[in-house]
Amino acid sequence: MIEVFDDNYFMQQAINEAQLALEKGEVPVGAVIVSQKRIIARAHNQTEILNDVTAHAEMLAITSASSYLGAKYLTDCTMYITLEPCVMCAGALRWAQLSKLVYGASDEKSGFMRIGKELLHPKTTIAFGIKNEECASLMSDFFLAKRK
Amino acid sequence: MIEVFDDNYFMQQAINEAQLALEKGEVPVGAVIVSQKRIIARAHNQTEILNDVTAHAEMLAITSASSYLGAKYLTDCTMYITLEPCVMCAGALRWAQLSKLVYGASDEKSGFMRIGKELLHPKTTIAFGIKNEECASLMSDFFLAKRK
Repeated sequence: MIEVFDDNYFMQQAINEAQLALEKGEVPVGAVIVSQKRIIARAHNQTEILNDVTAHAEMLAITSASSYLGAKYLTDCTMYITLEPCVMCAGALRWAQLSKLVYGASDEKSGFMRIGKELLHPKTTIAFGIKNEECASLMSDFFLAKRK
Repeated sequence: MIEVFDDNYFMQQAINEAQLALEKGEVPVGAVIVSQKRIIARAHNQTEILNDVTAHAEMLAITSASSYLGAKYLTDCTMYITLEPCVMCAGALRWAQLSKLVYGASDEKSGFMRIGKELLHPKTTIAFGIKNEECASLMSDFFLAKRK
């Protein structure tokens, strides 16, 4: 039996969100939050349009998921995000006690893993590299076009 | 000549914000952001009322100051905050390129300094211990009352 709602499916939904960011001239990062195989929050980076450095896809998705659940903690949730979260977002995910984090491309410059996975909650499990090439291309194509 | 608008004055304004949080049953942390001796943003912790772990005083103050300035970067701004920022908030302050951070009480459990000042932007200067006892008492009194 084929599992339709698998990691690839949900990461594609995050990529779709990143595409929405791209269309608005934002750094193309997208996120979805999944609880019991259902997407309960979708968000993309909006730092430019909101003039706000805190408006990363992860932060907006956490706020949205918490609003949906009526609860501060995301202990039964998986976040799919196209890019490795930064330190700010990792700190937020720690407070949210996220159950599982799945990210696509790595971010060697600003990603939280340059500090270490201890920035996340001890109970958060991590997976990465899902649709890695597509997620990485989104970023590299964006910054290449910026330089032209 | 007495300097009226000094660090003590602005930290008192942050304490006043923390008191507002306390009155609402929130963890009492308050912040103000100052540019050219003027307060351009005030905020206090609202994680409970908003059901949102990202609603720390610092995050709300950054969003508010950016909105006031119409700019993402706080390169000419000082943040006064009653408690040492957490990792999430330090990460946000890095993105905002804050000029100066002044905090009251230390937070050995969740403060960013357990990782190190490299979480902030390299150009951000740091001062701490302003009205330390008042800021620390706000926190210790709050958690003592919670335990009763």
